[in-house]
Amino acid sequence: MRYLITFSYDGSKFKGYQKQPRLKTVQGEIEKALKELANKDIPIFGSGRTDASVHALNQKAHFDLDMDITKEKLQKALNSLLNNYIYIKKIEEVNDTFHARFNVSAKEYIYKINMGEYDPIEKDYVYQYNKKLDLAEMERALKYLEGTHDFKSFSKADEEKDNFTRTIIQTNLIRNIKNVNKFTISFLGTGFLRYQVRNMVGVLIEIGEGKRKSEDILNILEAKDRRKAGITAPPEGLYLNDVYYR
Amino acid sequence: MRYLITFSYDGSKFKGYQKQPRLKTVQGEIEKALKELANKDIPIFGSGRTDASVHALNQKAHFDLDMDITKEKLQKALNSLLNNYIYIKKIEEVNDTFHARFNVSAKEYIYKINMGEYDPIEKDYVYQYNKKLDLAEMERALKYLEGTHDFKSFSKADEEKDNFTRTIIQTNLIRNIKNVNKFTISFLGTGFLRYQVRNMVGVLIEIGEGKRKSEDILNILEAKDRRKAGITAPPEGLYLNDVYYR
Repeated sequence: MRYLITFSYDGSKFKGYQKQPRLKTVQGEIEKALKELANKDIPIFGSGRTDASVHALNQKAHFDLDMDITKEKLQKALNSLLNNYIYIKKIEEVNDTFHARFNVSAKEYIYKINMGEYDPIEKDYVYQYNKKLDLAEMERALKYLEGTHDFKSFSKADEEKDNFTRTIIQTNLIRNIKNVNKFTISFLGTGFLRYQVRNMVGVLIEIGEGKRKSEDILNILEAKDRRKAGITAPPEGLYLNDVYYR
Repeated sequence: MRYLITFSYDGSKFKGYQKQPRLKTVQGEIEKALKELANKDIPIFGSGRTDASVHALNQKAHFDLDMDITKEKLQKALNSLLNNYIYIKKIEEVNDTFHARFNVSAKEYIYKINMGEYDPIEKDYVYQYNKKLDLAEMERALKYLEGTHDFKSFSKADEEKDNFTRTIIQTNLIRNIKNVNKFTISFLGTGFLRYQVRNMVGVLIEIGEGKRKSEDILNILEAKDRRKAGITAPPEGLYLNDVYYR
């Protein structure tokens, strides 16, 4: 039986999603729980990795397991064995051809920023920018990122890839109704390059600071050159919010 | 010169407020930063301690320091030397007779509870109760706690004290406007016994579960016996929200 799991985690407690020898990772911890349950190695296939310190609200992965157990009991058993900073929110049965990475149709990331006073309690959960930004100009810039573009300028430096073309379906800048100093940027896209969201947020911040104008996004996209973009925003503000399948 | 500092901290990163040999504590970290700045030991006097895993949004402490420095520069210097999970929000100059503990007129604690799905990202910041509670009955119970009472039933077991009488000035149960499954209880009082807030929240939860009625608060107070109360709610939901001086 193939299962699709939906899970959340606190990225500050792991050395990233992907399994690495001798390091505590999200994949490593889930596979450890599965091994305890099944008494054998059960590899999991995630929708994609998240970097160290990046959080997930609804990450997805599939695995194959032959056990006489309902999905409700499987969820309970896995959560009781699992590291407390990871939680399996849902388990679905899927057919044998389903693949949690290859079948992805879209993903949504969100990025949280605090323009107000430094908050040590949210240090690992919200980027502590701690200065005012021009949100209206950032909102205009966001709209230039929507659509199908070559995002090479926003990829990881020295990334070797044949194709940097991706589609951003929708973006939003969401003001916090309880705190005027906090806001969230959301990016819904068919797929993202490594560091793409953090590099886009980096340029958006420079636009919010007044160092660039919103239209500069067009020149940066056109250049297809990482050096034309700006800083990489820190990982702690980033959350994988959702993964969609066809 | 005597200074009063207002600071916040993430309690999950420390073994409590009070200095202890070889353990990372809030007081210990602030005194370490002061020693680096002043090149000598500068003891700080807090408004009171918080237990391990308990957070503070506006804790207060005073210390004496003779340095030719403005309070703005002192704040900047201390924050740059300080552990990132503690932040000094304000520094005020006070007169030599001021004492951050003895002059307290009131304190406010808040306690955060999540009745919804387990959230691994808020595990250390909101009590993950993860079941429904009867908030209206809990609100009625809260009102019985207001006023001047002998709170011995809500004190730490085996606490040796002459006087367990304290005054709770105001309580509130605040629903979260964005998430119906989350709420916060606030307690404003002239002073609190050790574990008093967590023990009151423990009984309130039993009332919210329907195991007790709101009026039982009266019998528990009357008994002056720790065994008549209930569980001690876990520390991670508790925040010292503010400290007031006459």
